[in-house]
Amino acid sequence: MDLRANFQALFYPESVALIGASNQRNKWGYRILDNIITGGFKGKIYPINYKEKEIHGLKAFSSLKEVPDPIDLAVIVVPVRSVPETFEACIEKGVKAAILITAGFGEIGNEGKRLEEALTVRAREGGIIFTGPNCNGLMNRGIRLHAQMISLFPKRGPISMVTQSGNIGTSILARGIRNGLGFSKYVSSGNEALLRNEDIIEFYGEDPETEIIITYLEGVKNGQRFFEVCKKVALKKPILVMKAGRTRGGARAANSHTGSIAGPDEIFDAGCRQVGVLRCESLDELFDLAAALTRQPLPRGPRVGIVTSGGGWGVLASDACEKRGLDVTPISERSISELGRFLPPWWSKGNPIDLVAGMNNRNEVFEACISILFKNDEVDSIMLLGIGLILEQKRKKGYTLDETEKKMMDAEMKIADTILGLLDRYKRPIITATDLNMHENPYENPLFKKLREGGVLVYSDPDRAAAVISAMYRRYQYSRRSKSYAV
Amino acid sequence: MDLRANFQALFYPESVALIGASNQRNKWGYRILDNIITGGFKGKIYPINYKEKEIHGLKAFSSLKEVPDPIDLAVIVVPVRSVPETFEACIEKGVKAAILITAGFGEIGNEGKRLEEALTVRAREGGIIFTGPNCNGLMNRGIRLHAQMISLFPKRGPISMVTQSGNIGTSILARGIRNGLGFSKYVSSGNEALLRNEDIIEFYGEDPETEIIITYLEGVKNGQRFFEVCKKVALKKPILVMKAGRTRGGARAANSHTGSIAGPDEIFDAGCRQVGVLRCESLDELFDLAAALTRQPLPRGPRVGIVTSGGGWGVLASDACEKRGLDVTPISERSISELGRFLPPWWSKGNPIDLVAGMNNRNEVFEACISILFKNDEVDSIMLLGIGLILEQKRKKGYTLDETEKKMMDAEMKIADTILGLLDRYKRPIITATDLNMHENPYENPLFKKLREGGVLVYSDPDRAAAVISAMYRRYQYSRRSKSYAV
Repeated sequence: MDLRANFQALFYPESVALIGASNQRNKWGYRILDNIITGGFKGKIYPINYKEKEIHGLKAFSSLKEVPDPIDLAVIVVPVRSVPETFEACIEKGVKAAILITAGFGEIGNEGKRLEEALTVRAREGGIIFTGPNCNGLMNRGIRLHAQMISLFPKRGPISMVTQSGNIGTSILARGIRNGLGFSKYVSSGNEALLRNEDIIEFYGEDPETEIIITYLEGVKNGQRFFEVCKKVALKKPILVMKAGRTRGGARAANSHTGSIAGPDEIFDAGCRQVGVLRCESLDELFDLAAALTRQPLPRGPRVGIVTSGGGWGVLASDACEKRGLDVTPISERSISELGRFLPPWWSKGNPIDLVAGMNNRNEVFEACISILFKNDEVDSIMLLGIGLILEQKRKKGYTLDETEKKMMDAEMKIADTILGLLDRYKRPIITATDLNMHENPYENPLFKKLREGGVLVYSDPDRAAAVISAMYRRYQYSRRSKSYAV
Repeated sequence: MDLRANFQALFYPESVALIGASNQRNKWGYRILDNIITGGFKGKIYPINYKEKEIHGLKAFSSLKEVPDPIDLAVIVVPVRSVPETFEACIEKGVKAAILITAGFGEIGNEGKRLEEALTVRAREGGIIFTGPNCNGLMNRGIRLHAQMISLFPKRGPISMVTQSGNIGTSILARGIRNGLGFSKYVSSGNEALLRNEDIIEFYGEDPETEIIITYLEGVKNGQRFFEVCKKVALKKPILVMKAGRTRGGARAANSHTGSIAGPDEIFDAGCRQVGVLRCESLDELFDLAAALTRQPLPRGPRVGIVTSGGGWGVLASDACEKRGLDVTPISERSISELGRFLPPWWSKGNPIDLVAGMNNRNEVFEACISILFKNDEVDSIMLLGIGLILEQKRKKGYTLDETEKKMMDAEMKIADTILGLLDRYKRPIITATDLNMHENPYENPLFKKLREGGVLVYSDPDRAAAVISAMYRRYQYSRRSKSYAV
């Protein structure tokens, strides 16, 4: 079985058949077809439905057999009882890969499990690979293939995902779109009857369009192979894992969701650490870290400099950093004296650098603080807190700005260029966070927009920013260690 | 010194003097006055400035002495060097309470500390109480007093706050406004030179308009008194505490922020547990819990029923609950059979109740699930996941709805009435969470609006919902225990 050719058919098909296509707008058989068309797939599309002549403007075929051309990929949405015969038809037609959307297999109990196993055996015999069952589709943004239940079309970029849960995958894609993050590939693996998490991770490891790999999972069926694959891939690309089913109740829920058996959590955790997988505590962390890795350099040490325009946030940020093993390092007399030239007499004279009321020319102040700390090599990363609030507050007021206010707003808009410039100059991360609760709609803030276009996200609080810096530092440590082992 | 009279002057003044009032729009002396006027304070307002005749449309006085009437409350924004003489003037005038906004005291080092101590001694001698220095003001929503730096005017309600950090207080008020939460009083206590956290908590304990007390702090100066006060007050009202300065770096930051000395964190933690204070891990938790306590009954046990329209979220929710000592309890055969009458054959047949595709008549389904679990006394609280997504998705699409879709949307809008009705009928909490990342602007979702108006918030993820249920259950356990001790 030439898996390479099968994977080629799964991710780069020239022709796709949708088996169970429908003209009823509320059916998945319509919506998936709609997504394939809307997504802009350039290959051939064959809707299969034994009753219809035309679906969504395309000629429909009564069966796979009727299709005159070869088919690379089949998307299957027929009811569970019709899946076995559909599989036979695919094998007969020489289809190389399938996406089995249909649910009602391993997740519902023993009968479903037997059905699922029989399918998997048949697939191996017939030389077909498939993702699912009980999944919500697959996307390859590079060829505009959106064979998926969800109507989400992110921009092209370096992140590829494999997820056992369709709704969690959807949630991550939605965040990505809202935040302008770019994706390469998405696979919902569902019950993972044949293709498993680690198969997709292995493929992503070799895929030149994938730079960052993220995965949500509830259980691994073959822990040894999972960690072997991850170990190999993590040498080249960061792998971010969110694993649920950690508690007794969570494991029970996972079993009835994707039929997953969650093993002891500590063992999984230790395995991740050993092979350089970055395990994330929450979806927020998974998303935040993936976003940072697309643009930010890795910190080469644990020392964090905090620059804040509010004292309380500086304290929260310090706690968050140190809780995660980072070091809110005291800064030298030299830096304190250099900073004093830019800051009002009542500044905090230490780290966190609390600007208090030194806000009138914020951009210059921010730039000076960051440059001095990096130039004097006193910190390995900067956490910048409280940007974007002037723009928000003044815009909200809706009154005519006076000259001082105009200058403040202009300075604030320049923060984006400053940050992007400093990132390139010093090759050290600058992670920004601000209180998004203060914003009517943070996605509309012009400063945040500008930063986002440059690949830098503004996180919603210091805790999330600290989690990102800490994980990036772990990644740095792993890459260094693994390099020194390599022969 | 009649503290009661002083507190009356602080929170219910009939006349307020703003010392350091200004006509320059960017100065605090203007903005605080603007907030007092905009807020709608009905008492007398006296701007004090030795150069101006009129400020913001009000007659200005060159000094306190010039004011012909008595003054209850003074708001002080003069530069730090002028504070001592201003204090003397206040004492001479017979002012009973002050808000000392000015910074540059204990937080900047020893010199500032000495100045602060001298002021405090003088205040005690002169019979004046004050909050601050280095604070951002005070609010009493009941009499529309907004003697504060921030232009935020929440609606009236049961929550009162005292915070050592002005910007954290601002953040919480802003959330409150966005989420329609009602506040009674707000005190920014800053360096707490005279009035401390526990003094305000003690006052709130006796205040009939306060039902829920929240506080952000970085250190307590007199731990014994703090816990004594909390013990007394917590018997009557929930006290929610977010305490920062937990780590070495955080404690250092706290010291340069409000001059606070953070003691060992474990001791503070143990103290909170002993006296029934609900310590929150984050501002989100503090806010979420305060919101829930305004409308939700307390759960009388740890058993949680999870109702979800997405499997992955059910797994995350189960982990989140059990991690926090709650019990995602298996449900009885009886309930499974009763639920089966409302759910499609492929539902999860267990807890979490995963509705999978049983969404077409969601409201009825939700109502049935919740009623059956409560009626059969199998759970003490419900976590309801994934509501509000249909409305969002269809609205986004912007196309004409077909009949099925219209029915789905109507059913979804009824969820609000259903939840509020079930809360009243069963007196058990129903905590809702949904993926707010899927929403362009969650504040605009009509279902969420309707729920919010009824006092129920939709949290952004299962983890936040679990934190709320767990803390409410702790509150329930404490009230029961303390009742059995009471004589």
